[in-house]
Amino acid sequence: PFFSVGVQNTHHVFPGCGVSSSEMNPSELKLAAVYVSDAQYNRNVFFNTSPQCVRLYMLYNHWSLQFLVYVFIFVDLALALFEDPAFVPLPLWATYIMELICLAAFTARLIHYARIIPKQKFWKDPKNICIVVVILLTLVDMIIYGSLKAMDYHVVRWSRVFRPLFLVNVTEGRHLRRAFRSIRNALPQIIYVFFLFIISVLMFSLMALKLFGKRDLKTIDGRSYFTNYGEIIFDLYVLVTTANSPDVMMPAYNSSSTFSIFFIVYILINTYTFMSVFLAVVYNNYKKYLKEEVRQLVRAKRQKMVRAFKVLQEMRDEEPVVMQACWNQLVCVVQPNITNAHRELLWSVSDENKRGKMAFLQLPDLLNIQVITLKSRTHPLEIWIPRIYSSSASRLICRVVQHRAFVYIYDFIILVNAVFIGLDEENSFFSYAEWVFLGLYLLEILMKLYTFEPRAFYARHQFWNCGWVAKDFKMFFFFFFLKGDGYNGRQILDIVFILRVLRLLRVVDSIKRFRAIINTLVKIGPTILTFGQLILVVYYIFAMVGMELFKGKITYFENSASPGSEYCGNPLLKGSAFAKNNYCKNNFNNVWSSFVLLVELTVVNQWHDILFLTNASARIFFVIFHILVVIIIINIFVAFVLEAFFVEYTFSKGELQTSLEKKIEELELGYRTVDGLLQRMFEADLSPEDNADDEDPDNESPPGYNFPNPSYDTI
Amino acid sequence: PFFSVGVQNTHHVFPGCGVSSSEMNPSELKLAAVYVSDAQYNRNVFFNTSPQCVRLYMLYNHWSLQFLVYVFIFVDLALALFEDPAFVPLPLWATYIMELICLAAFTARLIHYARIIPKQKFWKDPKNICIVVVILLTLVDMIIYGSLKAMDYHVVRWSRVFRPLFLVNVTEGRHLRRAFRSIRNALPQIIYVFFLFIISVLMFSLMALKLFGKRDLKTIDGRSYFTNYGEIIFDLYVLVTTANSPDVMMPAYNSSSTFSIFFIVYILINTYTFMSVFLAVVYNNYKKYLKEEVRQLVRAKRQKMVRAFKVLQEMRDEEPVVMQACWNQLVCVVQPNITNAHRELLWSVSDENKRGKMAFLQLPDLLNIQVITLKSRTHPLEIWIPRIYSSSASRLICRVVQHRAFVYIYDFIILVNAVFIGLDEENSFFSYAEWVFLGLYLLEILMKLYTFEPRAFYARHQFWNCGWVAKDFKMFFFFFFLKGDGYNGRQILDIVFILRVLRLLRVVDSIKRFRAIINTLVKIGPTILTFGQLILVVYYIFAMVGMELFKGKITYFENSASPGSEYCGNPLLKGSAFAKNNYCKNNFNNVWSSFVLLVELTVVNQWHDILFLTNASARIFFVIFHILVVIIIINIFVAFVLEAFFVEYTFSKGELQTSLEKKIEELELGYRTVDGLLQRMFEADLSPEDNADDEDPDNESPPGYNFPNPSYDTI
Repeated sequence: PFFSVGVQNTHHVFPGCGVSSSEMNPSELKLAAVYVSDAQYNRNVFFNTSPQCVRLYMLYNHWSLQFLVYVFIFVDLALALFEDPAFVPLPLWATYIMELICLAAFTARLIHYARIIPKQKFWKDPKNICIVVVILLTLVDMIIYGSLKAMDYHVVRWSRVFRPLFLVNVTEGRHLRRAFRSIRNALPQIIYVFFLFIISVLMFSLMALKLFGKRDLKTIDGRSYFTNYGEIIFDLYVLVTTANSPDVMMPAYNSSSTFSIFFIVYILINTYTFMSVFLAVVYNNYKKYLKEEVRQLVRAKRQKMVRAFKVLQEMRDEEPVVMQACWNQLVCVVQPNITNAHRELLWSVSDENKRGKMAFLQLPDLLNIQVITLKSRTHPLEIWIPRIYSSSASRLICRVVQHRAFVYIYDFIILVNAVFIGLDEENSFFSYAEWVFLGLYLLEILMKLYTFEPRAFYARHQFWNCGWVAKDFKMFFFFFFLKGDGYNGRQILDIVFILRVLRLLRVVDSIKRFRAIINTLVKIGPTILTFGQLILVVYYIFAMVGMELFKGKITYFENSASPGSEYCGNPLLKGSAFAKNNYCKNNFNNVWSSFVLLVELTVVNQWHDILFLTNASARIFFVIFHILVVIIIINIFVAFVLEAFFVEYTFSKGELQTSLEKKIEELELGYRTVDGLLQRMFEADLSPEDNADDEDPDNESPPGYNFPNPSYDTI
Repeated sequence: PFFSVGVQNTHHVFPGCGVSSSEMNPSELKLAAVYVSDAQYNRNVFFNTSPQCVRLYMLYNHWSLQFLVYVFIFVDLALALFEDPAFVPLPLWATYIMELICLAAFTARLIHYARIIPKQKFWKDPKNICIVVVILLTLVDMIIYGSLKAMDYHVVRWSRVFRPLFLVNVTEGRHLRRAFRSIRNALPQIIYVFFLFIISVLMFSLMALKLFGKRDLKTIDGRSYFTNYGEIIFDLYVLVTTANSPDVMMPAYNSSSTFSIFFIVYILINTYTFMSVFLAVVYNNYKKYLKEEVRQLVRAKRQKMVRAFKVLQEMRDEEPVVMQACWNQLVCVVQPNITNAHRELLWSVSDENKRGKMAFLQLPDLLNIQVITLKSRTHPLEIWIPRIYSSSASRLICRVVQHRAFVYIYDFIILVNAVFIGLDEENSFFSYAEWVFLGLYLLEILMKLYTFEPRAFYARHQFWNCGWVAKDFKMFFFFFFLKGDGYNGRQILDIVFILRVLRLLRVVDSIKRFRAIINTLVKIGPTILTFGQLILVVYYIFAMVGMELFKGKITYFENSASPGSEYCGNPLLKGSAFAKNNYCKNNFNNVWSSFVLLVELTVVNQWHDILFLTNASARIFFVIFHILVVIIIINIFVAFVLEAFFVEYTFSKGELQTSLEKKIEELELGYRTVDGLLQRMFEADLSPEDNADDEDPDNESPPGYNFPNPSYDTI
């Protein structure tokens, strides 16, 4: 255990580094900075501590390289748009070259990573092995596909299914891996409920077979009703998703009113109760495993800071201590663009604690705090034209702008504008009025800029700048629109319309209660992005499989007069609900329409109709999709929103604040990152032992964790 | 404050009442018993403490009178089946007489109640005033309706809407009132989110109008697409419920693939995020207010016990004490059918605490515990025929039955039976096989009865007795079926089929993990009943309003050949989706079909099609229903299931146990009532101050509570 009595009394220490900055070993400083930076961004890479490796590692973490990796992943995933079946067809050699470039980039990145960490570590990590295997498989598939295609055989491009694995297993995909791991760990519990649910569906199906099978009932399209056990199971499974309600009930209900009881009981048990139980189980288990992950995260972070401390420490009064000068240098290396004022603020916050270690350990959290310096700067106009700016007329303008009524008047103007937007169909008067509104908004901006210091104005309206930006965009596009014409002008007009409507958000924001709710929603935004990646991975895999299975089975005809457009080019669909509802564009003929189709399946309604081919393989595909996406992933999403709101409720009552958070609130600062939110969610539940650094130094790998990333090791 | 040092050392007290039982004032004992019983069942009635009133109050609480009240409420509500528009038409005088009898019963009950409590209390309670007003209004409505009907005018029977208020405001409807009160208190918070949600829908509608309105798109049925702002708002509101997905998107999507983005963003924000936020807000607020209610409940219960203690107390060693003899008498009065063993067990549990007051205060909780005496009784056969029963052959049978393989074999038999049930369509072999299975099950029961002591057997299988009972029923009905024939026989056969399938539950129960989940579901059963009442009240009101508004607009023709059956007898519906889908039976022509229709609307799917008349009033009716039932009540239901599962998870980890619960667990007892579950849900959150009895005795009404029931007063 390090520093178990690590209370640093910096007040007795001469302000200024004991060791002069030239004496400070730059490689050691870099090492410490890397540890701090790792802790700040929750990286869990066990790199070699040799100076060369540290330099390589810093390069590896450079934002430009990380950005490049994401660009290549994006390009690799987007290739599906150009490959057969293509949204925008490109020749095979073009996509092959693009794919090879991407693979080369991933390989280069992997080699870079391999040079940073010890060899045996590299090959122990399944994430690296996974990338190597996927690269090799992709190459093999490309060769097979290319050569067989050249010989005009029908081939399947199966390796595309693995592409999302790059997104998951790239070093930066921490949040995504954590989410997948939590899902995987929560699965066993979910599966028990799922089995019970399936048994319930099977039993009800058996009852339905017995109750309705022999009554010679007919569905609307004349098929016999509830006579085939397999069909009944499928129909009742669809009823759980409510997609075929009340159609599935109508034949029985028409035959006798009492039969409705069967369906009501079924819906009560399977749709309402079991789906709620799924939510409860998914929520509870996902949260449990996520909490465990966050606990490990916090522990790893503290260990890294302990290591950094060990590198920088000096002995003063028999106690290990980090001096302010070293601390300053460290912060400068970690965040080169930090202002002096910001750095001094951080030091004062750390120092106020009077507990050296704890304050040092909190450094990464402090660095994550977004500091907005709201100094009351003098308005530049006051410097340039002091006489005019301080005249009584000028002061009156400032007082008008600062008055509450000014805000109300502009809110009212926006509402009037909204009505005009709704009406401006034909009358040219309304389009002229739009110019008046534009002028009014410009006037508002100018008056505000006149009154408030520009930087302060910008900082205050951070989120709602979108409205501002919207206006800029608008004027720009209006200009374009008046010049351009035809279709291009129309698209721009669309954007202008949307931006005009977004103006209304400003009015909503001016109501305090609404702002609280919106702020919570904005706060969970970054987490929802992680969630979006999760969905993207699952959608991509299903889209690839679906395209191989179903491409070309349905055709959408732009021209509704062309033969076959009535049944989507597939004679099997003649007279089907799919063709009748004009769903022909819901097909797997390219990535974009596959994604839209999968979104429709996630929304669940009409999914049994979108099942355009009623053969068993299509059903299995869709049922698996439903279980994975709707029952598991959507429930996790709901659980996340629930938890975020509960935390917000608890937090607003001040029950959950840590001492650090309290201090931040006093300083009126705010911070929010995905990990920050997660940590706060579970802060109350994390046991205080996690603060202790008495990890066994010989403990090479975290026990009981079969998936070693994020893994960490003690020095 | 009473008994702030109320530690009772009963070990020093001679076992036996200090005051002999003849000296014990019977009216005082009765008063104490009434307090205990009130605390046990959480009644909050401020009755007069005069002996006569206490006697009247005990009569008032007698189960038979309470049962009668529920019978009359049921009859009153069921009258809608026989009134115009009737399910089973009855002449007006018949329903009038029945209604008058019900009203007389409610009046009698109210007069009984008025004689128990002080007059000024009676008229201060809105629940009593509500009943009086509803009775008077009903009488007025009956007179108006009857006289106008006699003159052949068209009249509306508006007072039927108030009937569910009897269910809510009857003294026993505590849980229901509490639920309504919690909803009402949670409303303000919900409304803010709802406004924000509506603003979001309005803004998206405006964007949709601008984006799609001028493109001359057409829907499938040839109407112009997204040109009318009001229609767009309705369509997009329906999209939030997912009922018209993907139809509402198809015209835009067919026109350009990029337009799908608009709908995807809309669904993401409004369907997924806002609906989750609704769940979060409903959950959080409902729980908060329910917690406050439970806190009041616990406080009221403790106060009642303090009063009971005060009545029974004697001074021993300067300390107020209740002697065991008094305690015994009290328990005997509260629960006349209690066994001696049970009473002694309760005493020992109370006494073990060595804290007189606390143990006495816990008495109602203890009485609510269901004690199953699992004494190892001797098998009656061993007494009657000891020689045969202890023979080696007999012992072998017992060992076979107790063996695990015996259970597995019977599970297997049931599964085989399930397959046979699925197959027994035509082949007579299968129906004979059914007799074999029946024989096997009978054999099982007999063997088990032979091996286990009957009472122990019954106690062990409490829940799963349903399977047992099912079998009894089955044999009974089979017998009937073989005798009866025609339609009657068919209905019985239906029940037999269902019961046969329910047998499968036994196999599910034999798997431990499944049993845990099922037990949780069974435990929340009583709460779901309260919930069912809540739904019933809302459904009933909507059914009454709907019947007055829409009765007779749709006709269902049993004979599909009759003219008008194609368009449900309403020429307006010619060619509509409603008629095409054969929804004619989804109408408001009688209570039963109204209820089924409301269930379908709760399930949400196709509700815009079930909106058979697209005029504005119908839309308003259904949107209000959707907001009330789907957004608020269903979310509360989901919240309840969630909370119950969370409590179960926490409880199984033993974090939430009170000392009493721990003791109960040691004794392997279990208890569950609605209030018990609620109390346990919030036990961790209830502050310890609630234990204190230092309520201000002059505090006539609970502060800050504008709805004074359940109110309580100190002595």
